[in-house]
Formats: sequence, structure tokens, C-alpha cells
Amino acid sequence: MSASPVQPSFDPESPVFRAHEGGKLGVHATQPLRDRGDLSLLYTPGVAEVSLAIAADPTLAARYTSRGRTVAVVSDGTAVLGLGDIGPLGAMPVMEGKAVLFKHFGGVDAVPVVMESGSVDELVEAIARIAPTYGGINLEDISAPRCFEIEERLVERLDIPVFHDDQHGTAIVVLAGLHNAVRVLDRRLEDLRVVVAGAGAAGVAVTRLLQRAGVRDVVVCDSRGIVSASRRDLAGHKARLAMSTNPRALTGSLADALDGADCYIGVSGGTVPEEQVATMAPGGIVFALANPTPEVHPDVAHRHAAVVATGRSDFPNQINNVLAFPGIFRGALDAGATRITEAMKLAAARAIADMVPEPTAERIVPSVFDDGVADAVASAVRALAPTLARSVPGGAAW
Amino acid sequence: MSASPVQPSFDPESPVFRAHEGGKLGVHATQPLRDRGDLSLLYTPGVAEVSLAIAADPTLAARYTSRGRTVAVVSDGTAVLGLGDIGPLGAMPVMEGKAVLFKHFGGVDAVPVVMESGSVDELVEAIARIAPTYGGINLEDISAPRCFEIEERLVERLDIPVFHDDQHGTAIVVLAGLHNAVRVLDRRLEDLRVVVAGAGAAGVAVTRLLQRAGVRDVVVCDSRGIVSASRRDLAGHKARLAMSTNPRALTGSLADALDGADCYIGVSGGTVPEEQVATMAPGGIVFALANPTPEVHPDVAHRHAAVVATGRSDFPNQINNVLAFPGIFRGALDAGATRITEAMKLAAARAIADMVPEPTAERIVPSVFDDGVADAVASAVRALAPTLARSVPGGAAW
Repeated sequence: MSASPVQPSFDPESPVFRAHEGGKLGVHATQPLRDRGDLSLLYTPGVAEVSLAIAADPTLAARYTSRGRTVAVVSDGTAVLGLGDIGPLGAMPVMEGKAVLFKHFGGVDAVPVVMESGSVDELVEAIARIAPTYGGINLEDISAPRCFEIEERLVERLDIPVFHDDQHGTAIVVLAGLHNAVRVLDRRLEDLRVVVAGAGAAGVAVTRLLQRAGVRDVVVCDSRGIVSASRRDLAGHKARLAMSTNPRALTGSLADALDGADCYIGVSGGTVPEEQVATMAPGGIVFALANPTPEVHPDVAHRHAAVVATGRSDFPNQINNVLAFPGIFRGALDAGATRITEAMKLAAARAIADMVPEPTAERIVPSVFDDGVADAVASAVRALAPTLARSVPGGAAW
Repeated sequence: MSASPVQPSFDPESPVFRAHEGGKLGVHATQPLRDRGDLSLLYTPGVAEVSLAIAADPTLAARYTSRGRTVAVVSDGTAVLGLGDIGPLGAMPVMEGKAVLFKHFGGVDAVPVVMESGSVDELVEAIARIAPTYGGINLEDISAPRCFEIEERLVERLDIPVFHDDQHGTAIVVLAGLHNAVRVLDRRLEDLRVVVAGAGAAGVAVTRLLQRAGVRDVVVCDSRGIVSASRRDLAGHKARLAMSTNPRALTGSLADALDGADCYIGVSGGTVPEEQVATMAPGGIVFALANPTPEVHPDVAHRHAAVVATGRSDFPNQINNVLAFPGIFRGALDAGATRITEAMKLAAARAIADMVPEPTAERIVPSVFDDGVADAVASAVRALAPTLARSVPGGAAW
């Protein structure tokens, strides 16, 4: 989510630098290479038969290359964690870490691709050009608003899934948590007044997915206050947000938005003073997702809200993308999906929520180490995946 | 080298298709991920420290990411083996196979990157943009003459090694073989009349490297005959070849070039009739490198030449790039090389040749399965590598 500044401190003896020594990813052959016989199967002359068969029927690439089980984790390093624009080399450890998570939790082979930043056109061109290598593309840590157009154009152009995890992974897990939070509170998504603090990648995607899932009253705030149709400083995705949210036409600051709200979802960092939290409707929901410092400390939030979640692993209810992306790509790759639809995202959120059959205020989402999360997500996603052989199946009822 | 047509025949039960089922490469984590503690080291929040340290000092990327030991095997699929332009998906099994060889023989982590073809500008832009991910780039199976300009421009632009293996890998192993062939024959490179049949990627690079190593009389032939300054149909790299080769200003066909030649190096396919081979100077050298069908069958060649080599593993003296590229990149990565210089190529050829201390007519190069080849090449290359910290060291005497 968002960020507090971290100071660079290079200590080669510290546990974190030791854990990164030599990088975190390796490549291995899946077939033995013992002698000339193996060599002639895995490389020339044998490989020519496989290449020709694929050239004649490209659908065979999914079966006879690693493409069908490999995802590229692509970043230009412009919005890395909460650290900002630290460039492709700085982004590399994060993308490798992401690849480790793909493998560990989803059994998905993932490789980092970090790139020099550039215009939307340049990034789309480069990513589309190398896309034949991969079965899916996970966009990561690309700054807003460029991330929206880059993703949209790649989705349109490519016939493999393209998924900007900072947007949709976050949105899916937020929805999973909110689904169980309203169950705990015996309320309905349709009746909630929700405030989303942050109009970047995560805020926009959270807003859209919550609306898809039935939330009617979402008010989005950016650093200047409520995103409303009356503001004259909005363009692009924020202007569109203003049209599709804020049904009561509120104006003013985050404080104005919070007054009487049932649910606060913070995805932009900063701090919300306790007196503002206190103005929310009683018995509500606070998701303070900034890392490492939540916008509202959970102890403070609990004085005014019934269900509290953060992005941190050391408090209950960690809203963590790791619950979503490994299973989503596992399912998409297994199905040979051509894209990740809204129905697949809703189904993934529901599958995550259902991993906690009896949610409580202290447990609205599973732990990332709970068994079966990625399998459940993969199964839900796979069932709804559009492929080259079939168009979009009907979405499950949310 | 070059090619005879192979018919596509898709038989899922055949050994070669079985060996390719699911692809030949996998990705794994090099660090354990057991619990939340590991997660916080390998990913957030710990990874932020490493990212910031690298952003502050980019040289740390070599130590704390997989970049420093990973090579991209890049192709647009326009000149795959001898199969021609079969596209990026068709190229994928070859690039995966190449990555398997990198790992097996050189301990180099390599990943395929296959891309939609396009103009030289488009390919250079895409490759340069993703280059921060890798410690080196092995270009593969890109059609001539585009491959020359693509490589030149990338070498100029990037500070990591860029190496078109179809050119330089072939040239290095040919030079290694020729070095030992002249030892067997008690002759000198300087005194040989050499005919190179083929003016594509391999032919051009072989010619240039032989000249660097001291060969004075090289005559290159393309499909229309001898590349000579008197031809009016030559442009670009062939026009430059015509200026730098053919010191006796021969004209005519390959047959004219072979008359009295000491050494034939075939890297373009086709067939050379026995009566033309018979016109070569007695006791010479034939390298018939087309795969799977040599331009001259070794049995025929032996009637007229003293040393015969092919590209095939089932005859003596296999000229195989696998002898070169794993060790070259191993050495370059270990040194943090910024490029592969001519001195490094010469040293690699010499290291390969020296793996056969007592060469005979039947053994001028080591076997690809001989122990120590890649280590010897890596050691030779590493010693000469230019790095960001030092410019080009003096080349070893050839």
C-alpha cells in the first residue's frame, strides 16, 4: 500500500542483506542432460521437430515450452513499495521476492523483468514485444496514472492475462476482508458508506471492485480531499472516479468524508487523527493498510470500530496480496486464460473469504500460511477463465 | 550452421516430444521461505532496505540480485537453426534448450526471451529497455544482416556483454579447431589460403576472427560466388567484407575459390561436389559445418583433406558452440564484464584448443562432455574482461 520513508542502510552482515546475497532466484533444467543422446533430444537436432510443430500449431507452445507455466513480473521501478521511483535495479529485489512468492504459494514459475522507464507507448511496446515468452504478465510497482493505461492497452493487445497486482491484488483481498467483516457485523455491502483514502493504483481498483460487488456509496479522497464532480482540478482517471462515486455529492476533506462513514479503507499512507476516526458511525470497519505505519494505529482504531485490518503481519487481519496473486495466476495459467475478468476477480475474493468459514472480528481473512488458499483461488479463477477456445463464461453470483 | 529442411511431424509419444513436455526450464527460490520471519526478509518490509541500498549504489545489484549471474537468451525467431523464420513461439524450445546448456556446462542461469520481430530500431529498443534485468545478453537465431546492426548498437548502448552466438560462438570454436589443425599439419595460420562458404552471421564472424588471429588470405563466397570488390551487387556488410578479404582479387564461383585452397570452412549449407574438393591443395583442411547434412560428407572429404571437421556429434571433430558460450558468459559474469572484446574471443579459442594438448587429425577440439572446458574458457575470458572499474586489459598474444 503506501509508505513511510526508509533510510538506506547498507550492512552486509545484517540478516536482510545476507538473505539477498547472490539473489533469490535460480533457473534449473527440468530434464536430465547426461550424454549425447539427451543433448540431441533437448537441443539439436531433436529440438527442431518441436520448433516446427509449434510453428505449424502455436497452441502446442503451452504444452512443449515453459511458457504455459511462467509469468513475468514486470516493473519499471517508478513506484516501488512505498519507496517511490527508485529505478529498475532498485526494483529488482522486490520483483525477485515476488517471484519467490509466486513459486512458493502458487507453484508458478515467475521471472523478474525490470525495465528502463519511459512513456506509456514505450513501455507497452517493449512489454508486448517480449510477451510471447510468457503465459501471463504481472505488472508491479508502476506509477499511477501510467499504470492504468499501460494495463488497459496490454490487455487489449495480448491474448495472455495481464494483471497489475498493486491494483487488483489489493482490491481482491480488500473485498475478501470486507465481505467477512460485514458477515461479522451482520450487515450488507449494499448499505455501507465506504471511504477510500487514496486515488492511486490501489484506491481506484478497490473502488471499482467494491462497486462491482455491490457497494453503492463509495467516497474517494486524494491528498486534496474528496474526489467530487464539483472539483475543477481533476482529469483522467480521477475525473472518471468523480463521475462514478460519491453519490451524496460530498465536498471537503477526508474529515468530511469520514463523518458518519461505516468503513474507512486507507491505501495512501499519511495519518488519520483519532478525532476524525471518532466521527465514524459506531461499530464500523477500519482498514488501515499503509505499510509499515498504518494510517490509524489498530489500538486507536479499535476504540471506534468493530473490525480493524492492516497491511502488517504482526496485527490480526493482514490484508496481503499474497492471498490473491499466486492462486489467480495458477488458475489462469492452468486454464490457458486469455485475460483476468472482473468475474474472476470477484470469484477470487469470494474464495479467499470462504477460507474463513466462521469469521470473527479478529479473523476476517486467512493467514498467508494457511494451507489451501492458493488452491481455492486457483480453482475459482480457472472455472471462469476465458480461453482461446471459449469466450467468457457467466460470472458466479457474488 | 545451416540447414536442411525438416518436416514437421507431431508425435506426442516420440522421445523428443516427451522430453519437451511441460518445457525444459524451471525457476526456484534460492532461499528458504518457512515462516513470517523469512517472508519479512525476502519480501516486505525487509526487501526495502536492499532496494534502497541498490538505488543509492547500483553496483550492489550484482551482489544482491540474481542479475549478476543471469543471461537472457534473446531471439525473434527469424533464423532458427536451419529452419528459417519460424517466429518467437517456434523459437522458444531452442532458446530453452540453450538455457539448459548454459546451466549444465557453465553454471550460468539463463532465461529465454523470445520477441515479436520488427525493425532493427524496434528490437534494439525493446532489448535495451529490459536489459537492466540481466548480467548479459546472448542474441540467438536473428537473421542476417539485421543481426549485425542489432548487436553493434546494443554493444554500444549497454554496459553488459552482448554476444550473438551464431556469429561469435561459431567463430571461436572454428578458430580453436583451425589452431589445432595447423598444429597437426605443422603449418601456420598466416600461410593458409582459406575459403569461407557463407556470408551470413557465422561466415562474417568466422572471417573476422580468423583475420584477427593472423589468417591473411580469406576468400568468402555467398550464393552468387566469390565476394569481391568487383561485384556490383554487394552492399552493407558484404561490401565491407569485399574490402577486407580476397587479397588475390579472385572472381567467380566457389569452385574458383577452392582451386588450390588449403582450407574450406562451410557455414551456409548446400553441397560441394567432390570434384571441387579435389582441386584443393593436397593435405588440407575441410570444415563442413552444415547440420544435419555437411556440405561434404566426411568420407569424401578425407579422400582429399588431412583434417576434417563437421558440426555433427557422430563424426570426429565436432565444431560445437557449446564449447564456447557457457564458459564465455561464466567468465564475463564472474568478472562483471561490460562487453566481450576481440581479445576475449581469441583467448577463449585458445583455451578451447589447449584442452587438447596433443591434437591429432581425429581430435582437434575437445568433446563437449570433456571436463574443464567451460572452466578453462571462463578463466581465460575473465582475465581479460573490461569492467566498469577498469578498461580493456592488454590482450594475450595469440
